[in-house]
Amino acid sequence: MSFKPPRPDDVLEAASRLRNVARHTPLLQSVRLNDLVGGTVFVKLESLQHTGAFKFRGAYNSMSRLDRARFPRGVLAYSTGNHGQAIATVGKMLNIPTTVVMPSDAPHVKVERARQQGAEVVLYDRKTQTREAVAERLRAAGGFMLIPPGDHPHVIAGQGTVALESLQLLGQDGVEVVIVPCGGGGLAAGTCLAADACHCTAEVWAAEPEAFDDTRRSLESGSRETNLASATSICDALLAPTPAVLPFSINQHRLSRAVTANDATVLKAMRLLFEEFRVVVEPGGAVAVAALLANPSLLRGRRALVLASGGNVDQHLFLQAIS
Amino acid sequence: MSFKPPRPDDVLEAASRLRNVARHTPLLQSVRLNDLVGGTVFVKLESLQHTGAFKFRGAYNSMSRLDRARFPRGVLAYSTGNHGQAIATVGKMLNIPTTVVMPSDAPHVKVERARQQGAEVVLYDRKTQTREAVAERLRAAGGFMLIPPGDHPHVIAGQGTVALESLQLLGQDGVEVVIVPCGGGGLAAGTCLAADACHCTAEVWAAEPEAFDDTRRSLESGSRETNLASATSICDALLAPTPAVLPFSINQHRLSRAVTANDATVLKAMRLLFEEFRVVVEPGGAVAVAALLANPSLLRGRRALVLASGGNVDQHLFLQAIS
Repeated sequence: MSFKPPRPDDVLEAASRLRNVARHTPLLQSVRLNDLVGGTVFVKLESLQHTGAFKFRGAYNSMSRLDRARFPRGVLAYSTGNHGQAIATVGKMLNIPTTVVMPSDAPHVKVERARQQGAEVVLYDRKTQTREAVAERLRAAGGFMLIPPGDHPHVIAGQGTVALESLQLLGQDGVEVVIVPCGGGGLAAGTCLAADACHCTAEVWAAEPEAFDDTRRSLESGSRETNLASATSICDALLAPTPAVLPFSINQHRLSRAVTANDATVLKAMRLLFEEFRVVVEPGGAVAVAALLANPSLLRGRRALVLASGGNVDQHLFLQAIS
Repeated sequence: MSFKPPRPDDVLEAASRLRNVARHTPLLQSVRLNDLVGGTVFVKLESLQHTGAFKFRGAYNSMSRLDRARFPRGVLAYSTGNHGQAIATVGKMLNIPTTVVMPSDAPHVKVERARQQGAEVVLYDRKTQTREAVAERLRAAGGFMLIPPGDHPHVIAGQGTVALESLQLLGQDGVEVVIVPCGGGGLAAGTCLAADACHCTAEVWAAEPEAFDDTRRSLESGSRETNLASATSICDALLAPTPAVLPFSINQHRLSRAVTANDATVLKAMRLLFEEFRVVVEPGGAVAVAALLANPSLLRGRRALVLASGGNVDQHLFLQAIS
């Protein structure tokens, strides 16, 4: 399967498809955060989205177009995390069967949550199989539409609506910088398209965990770099080994830079968001705020939109962040 | 001091005063909560308001009208909690001096937070003095406008804007019931006026901690009943000993009933709100949701607006709720 990259207009179309379906999530300022960075930061609390993450938008934007005659077995996805939950939830909403491929050692609660949404869960052995191979074998048997977490034009366009609805509120000259958490790069790519769609010339920055700075290095080298297999981070939503193909084809032209934060700073950002807004943001969702805390002079005198992209955090980790 | 009760139009006026000042907080549904009660529940997450509670609205609505010539020393309030923080914060926003009377054994962090907002903190000995007497002595010395937490028409009208902005979204026939956390009754009274202001005939229910059901008993008897001095509850924002005069004059005619929940159910409601919306709601803010969990048949087949009124929770208590 290969797709043509989505274009700015696709984000506008996704937005009309998502109208009255996705939540219009809050866009808030914190005096304390503004003071810390010496600038103006608008935080988009996408953790309040259905399923607790922006992934709902891409899932709905793709699945609501599904040709049921062509894909009678519905939608197939591989993800233990936010993308899988979004696919299962949208499947329930739209009455589309869903199958989610998960490792057999995935947390029981995540498997159960997907099943509760009506998804069929296919378990595989992480030691002997890859999720892509398992999913591809199912897909090849026929009847399934495979929706990958980032490498799909409707997914990217859907994710772009997070920034689009923020920029439409802020005005096309409302901010000079947009900072977005980045794993495979789907949200970043959608954000780049959204900025162009509303004629906003703001820089777009990717924010990555320090040990998963593949997009930063890829922007420098001009080709898709990989992370060390031994790399670790608490940002479980951002552990892609390398930038996804389709997102990177957009990001390499429109992203201005990538910034990073380590785990300790991510925990600080989670705490700050808890104290300032009384919300729960997951590590990967807090990495853009964390990158500002790590580099507080980056935004001096500037105005920025910062995406807090999800809130599905392991309870123990959240307790660690706020204690 | 005695005031004329506010009227529905005062809530509309407060709303225009608060436009672009107060946050338009999210109004969300949870499939799980809907399933639990067999009805449709719209939860208004006012915990995301400035200062983390609806009290910001009443404080701003009163303080933005302050006659500085008449009250050169600014605003005086007695409250360790959300009202005091709101007064201090609005004082900083509007450059109005504020004085907050707090007991000398108040948590250090609350005293510090008020001071950080520029408030002067006057400490008193809880064993030998009452906060009302201390505040009254300061007020009598001249120059201060005293803003009580509920017994004030502009405060009540400001609090009414929480329900107003929800009902304006939902439509005048959008819900059949509005459920609102109730301590002194200011938020409940404002909600009654708001319903009338938008010609919404929905019932308004007060929700109280089980041991602080003074409003429930007062509605039955027709006069302001008091709680036992020995009563305890984790709902620290709702521990008023008796309904406030002005709010009760409204509530006794417009409230349909009062419902209650005990501490254990309040903790469950906090956990549900955390899991469903990834937000932090304080015990008093969660009591209306808790009352539904305690009586899950109350809303069967009905549509309700439920206010989650604040999010300033002690960290240990929050950990207890979600563990």
